[in-house]
Amino acid sequence: MVAQHPHHDGSALYVGSSTPALGERCSLRLRIPQAWGTASRVWVRSVQDAEPRYDEAVLIGTGSGSAWWEASMLHVNPVALYRFVIEVSGDQGATYWHLNNAGLHNRDTSDYNDFRITTAIDAPAWSREAVMYQVFPDRFARSAAADAHPTPEWAVACDWDTPVQGRGPDVARQFYGGDLDGVTEKLDELEALGVDIVYLTPFFPGRSNHRYDASTFMSVDPLLGGDEALIRLVEAAHARGMKVMGDLTANHTGDAHEWFTRAQADPASVEAGFFYFNEDHSDYESWWGVKSLPKLNWASAALREAFVTGEDSVVAHWLKAPFNLDGWRIDVGNMTGRLGAQDINKEVAALIQARILEINPNALLLGEETSDAGADVDGYGWQGAMTYSNFTRPLWQWLVSPEARVDFFGTPLAAPNRVSADVVLETHRDLSSAFSWPVRNANMNALNTHDTARAASLMIPGGQVVAAAMSMLLPGIPVIFAGDEFGLEGDVGEASRTPIPWDEPGRVVTDLRTAYASLTALRHESLAVSEGGMRWLLADGDVLAFVRESAEESILLIATRAAATVALERLGLDAGGADALRAAPAFSVGELAATDAELELSGPGVFVWRLPGVAVPA
Amino acid sequence: MVAQHPHHDGSALYVGSSTPALGERCSLRLRIPQAWGTASRVWVRSVQDAEPRYDEAVLIGTGSGSAWWEASMLHVNPVALYRFVIEVSGDQGATYWHLNNAGLHNRDTSDYNDFRITTAIDAPAWSREAVMYQVFPDRFARSAAADAHPTPEWAVACDWDTPVQGRGPDVARQFYGGDLDGVTEKLDELEALGVDIVYLTPFFPGRSNHRYDASTFMSVDPLLGGDEALIRLVEAAHARGMKVMGDLTANHTGDAHEWFTRAQADPASVEAGFFYFNEDHSDYESWWGVKSLPKLNWASAALREAFVTGEDSVVAHWLKAPFNLDGWRIDVGNMTGRLGAQDINKEVAALIQARILEINPNALLLGEETSDAGADVDGYGWQGAMTYSNFTRPLWQWLVSPEARVDFFGTPLAAPNRVSADVVLETHRDLSSAFSWPVRNANMNALNTHDTARAASLMIPGGQVVAAAMSMLLPGIPVIFAGDEFGLEGDVGEASRTPIPWDEPGRVVTDLRTAYASLTALRHESLAVSEGGMRWLLADGDVLAFVRESAEESILLIATRAAATVALERLGLDAGGADALRAAPAFSVGELAATDAELELSGPGVFVWRLPGVAVPA
Repeated sequence: MVAQHPHHDGSALYVGSSTPALGERCSLRLRIPQAWGTASRVWVRSVQDAEPRYDEAVLIGTGSGSAWWEASMLHVNPVALYRFVIEVSGDQGATYWHLNNAGLHNRDTSDYNDFRITTAIDAPAWSREAVMYQVFPDRFARSAAADAHPTPEWAVACDWDTPVQGRGPDVARQFYGGDLDGVTEKLDELEALGVDIVYLTPFFPGRSNHRYDASTFMSVDPLLGGDEALIRLVEAAHARGMKVMGDLTANHTGDAHEWFTRAQADPASVEAGFFYFNEDHSDYESWWGVKSLPKLNWASAALREAFVTGEDSVVAHWLKAPFNLDGWRIDVGNMTGRLGAQDINKEVAALIQARILEINPNALLLGEETSDAGADVDGYGWQGAMTYSNFTRPLWQWLVSPEARVDFFGTPLAAPNRVSADVVLETHRDLSSAFSWPVRNANMNALNTHDTARAASLMIPGGQVVAAAMSMLLPGIPVIFAGDEFGLEGDVGEASRTPIPWDEPGRVVTDLRTAYASLTALRHESLAVSEGGMRWLLADGDVLAFVRESAEESILLIATRAAATVALERLGLDAGGADALRAAPAFSVGELAATDAELELSGPGVFVWRLPGVAVPA
Repeated sequence: MVAQHPHHDGSALYVGSSTPALGERCSLRLRIPQAWGTASRVWVRSVQDAEPRYDEAVLIGTGSGSAWWEASMLHVNPVALYRFVIEVSGDQGATYWHLNNAGLHNRDTSDYNDFRITTAIDAPAWSREAVMYQVFPDRFARSAAADAHPTPEWAVACDWDTPVQGRGPDVARQFYGGDLDGVTEKLDELEALGVDIVYLTPFFPGRSNHRYDASTFMSVDPLLGGDEALIRLVEAAHARGMKVMGDLTANHTGDAHEWFTRAQADPASVEAGFFYFNEDHSDYESWWGVKSLPKLNWASAALREAFVTGEDSVVAHWLKAPFNLDGWRIDVGNMTGRLGAQDINKEVAALIQARILEINPNALLLGEETSDAGADVDGYGWQGAMTYSNFTRPLWQWLVSPEARVDFFGTPLAAPNRVSADVVLETHRDLSSAFSWPVRNANMNALNTHDTARAASLMIPGGQVVAAAMSMLLPGIPVIFAGDEFGLEGDVGEASRTPIPWDEPGRVVTDLRTAYASLTALRHESLAVSEGGMRWLLADGDVLAFVRESAEESILLIATRAAATVALERLGLDAGGADALRAAPAFSVGELAATDAELELSGPGVFVWRLPGVAVPA
């Protein structure tokens, strides 16, 4: 039973300093529930200059039904790998258990799944309690000024209620004319929803509705209202205490980009070195072979200066006044700086991070990593990832509707497998274990984005709000993609870029605004969510349960995919905790009946309780 | 049942080219046993510039009871990651299976466990069928000349039958006086055993019996017979078709090393830059804090020249005539070039590899990696690892005696856990999956070495020969540590460095020479072992079974830890294969009775059959 397993995570309950300097010692604690058994000895096994070292732990006392052990680890390398080794004496000699970031094992395990503590600069504190709201500007809202904007020659003009085409030649050309003043005008709605970060997909001019094909990085698309509209949006957001993040393609430009047109016209130009031209200058590398997106060559020192290190570089320009963006999401972060035998991805990411923190130490840098981000995202560079592997897809696997047929980044698969909760947990752990605790907290937990099918189309009826609750209360930055709060649908990313039905209640599929607002409030109110540890309590069939724990308070969540009965004993709670679950939840969607020993839960449903904090021995 | 799982490995049955150049396409095959089910579609999912890409496979036919699928993958990056995705259509929609290097999964999996194909230069062909014999020179054999050698001042002179001390102050000082001419004199015995590679732990002069504290890298210790003795040994070995490998500490020297004495005497010397001195030159970094082993600083260009790139560098000197060594094992390969924030390990390993291959493209480079070698050893640098994680320790876990109390590299644990065969397989896969097929074949499969307890002390009675058979027939270079063939014991590495009882039959614990000779012969005779694939058939409790398969022939091994009955059906063989198992094995230790449906096996035991090859559709 996972609730009874020995536990460690990167939170303050278990780690003395989450970012110790090299040469410092770091205290690490392990909690062993009494129901699991008694350890005879415990060590921290760390990897120092690639060689394992053991530091013996001492039993510091008991609290919250557990024995607590503590060891001190010397922090030798920028990324410290460690695990706990637990000895249990028995008549037949000792048994050893390894607890790593993927769980508990009675065998040797690979270092890949070890816990990690790094010297990387954490994502800013505000990101720990924040709720992100993703805006695709063309589809979010039109200000009055938008009516005056001409339809560009590449575009197919659409009315706000024109159906979005998810596939076909007009996918990138359908033009709805949302603008940044439109976003500013809706800040009341976002504030009511509990949004802290407005994340805008690109605002640069391009020749598509998605604008990932920038023709310059130095001005806001006039169709969005130009630079002044961005300044107005950021000022209005900041006045409400909200942050605004931009979206930058470090991997490529558009083929109409001023750099690329100069590069193409003149092989001797500085800009020619920004790209990968062939010998006779007749061809060039591009993203995924799409010629309208020429790939940037980060080996170019001049590119590095123009994009990152220069006084008014692309990265810097928008973080400085008067724009004052609060951070960047880097598009195609995984491919940036990678081409064949060349791999300077980490170097580029670190360069961007250093420049950002120079301008604003309180800014946030996230990198898109569509697939497994474990190897790339260690906090040196991207502080967190816009990834789908560790949260989005495991949840999809659990809540997927048998009828769903959805695309995911061009994979040929019809939909994720439907698997039981234990496999969901295994997947989540497999794809999370390489993250340090700060990275895990800075990763985006999205149910869906502008690049995926919508949860409402993919999941069983009622599944979205279950997943949304998990996104809000698990480690990571929860993401609401604009329209999620209205239950909007889409079977592929391009179809999910639906204009928001502000004035068209008929297009609202399910009004989830109240539920989202309650969940964001819960997130904001709870120190256990922003600062607490993370312990899985149950993962079996149709039920997932976890608890976020801090010394001050705890938050317990039970999610069901279908109606289920949960024996309280399986949650491993002490008497006080079990009592608390017989009280009304702080948040719930679904029906609940509690007896002395069991909870009867409807499903899909989600039930959240606030519980007392954890007693750690001093 | 693992025998029925879809299968792929890096062998010629499944891979068109094991080292495709960048930009080439590589054909990859998947075998799906009919007993498992029928796939509706199959893809290779590869990771290209860090982004997943799907190439659809085609069904090319059936053979050996399986459907065979083939896809073509573009080889984009030096290390290509890939897996198979298998679609099985059903009434409830499709189910997707991921086959990676750790097995079959019905869920998303991390890239870490993907199959790998690289452009690295493979270990030489001779290593694929070779059997390695490890010699610790001080303890192997004394020639007549050894009597004339004085006892050095640091040493405690021992007679050949003086008990070896495994712990205490004299561990490194007990001096038995074995020498290289002693090794030359025993080549008949090694040839009879089927040895192909004589791997010598260091032959440089030092102030210890292990000589990992070299005082120079440019001459053979006179106590071992000097340079001439090494030349005689290599010439005699080569005359028999054997290879000789040396052992080099790239991580450190001894504190009596000529470089270090100059460095210590003169902070302005070139050699001072070879080490990590503190500011006032009063202290320096050393291996694991042991001051007699000052750590080398690979940031020094002058060190790189002296050690690697120079005309008569350390690495080069011994590979050239008149010494003609066939390769190096690099001591502490994992720590080399790593200290705190500095990590140039891969760079140093690649530098050494390039220099070695420049002199002798047929030489072998192995790196010591005492712990998980998965992240370090990708073939760029060390072509294989002297590691314990993926073979030695999983086998120990299975065959460990409940009474065993043994040390392993200073860990505080009394002995490995005793686990069942399924956990052994899980451990093996967890710690092997990051290796490319060529690396896996070049890794040393040791039951024990001069740095560990002996299998005879650690394993249940009769366990050693079971493990030895597995070392000979699994992918990897089997290692006999001198004395294994006599069943010698030792509860810690230092105690395992027992003088070989050539003339003292009373010290022979178990004479396993015949068994070893039969196993090495089997390895040498079988193309399935040197070139074949590797499929697990059974891993359950007390039974492990696998088959090595090539188009020409197959070798099937069943190992038992205790008496067991194996239903033939569980091995997933076709009728011909099942028939063959009713015939007498090609090699066996233990009792065997076959019925129509079952094998009754004694245990510990090991049973090996030669079977027909695999029919792959053209």
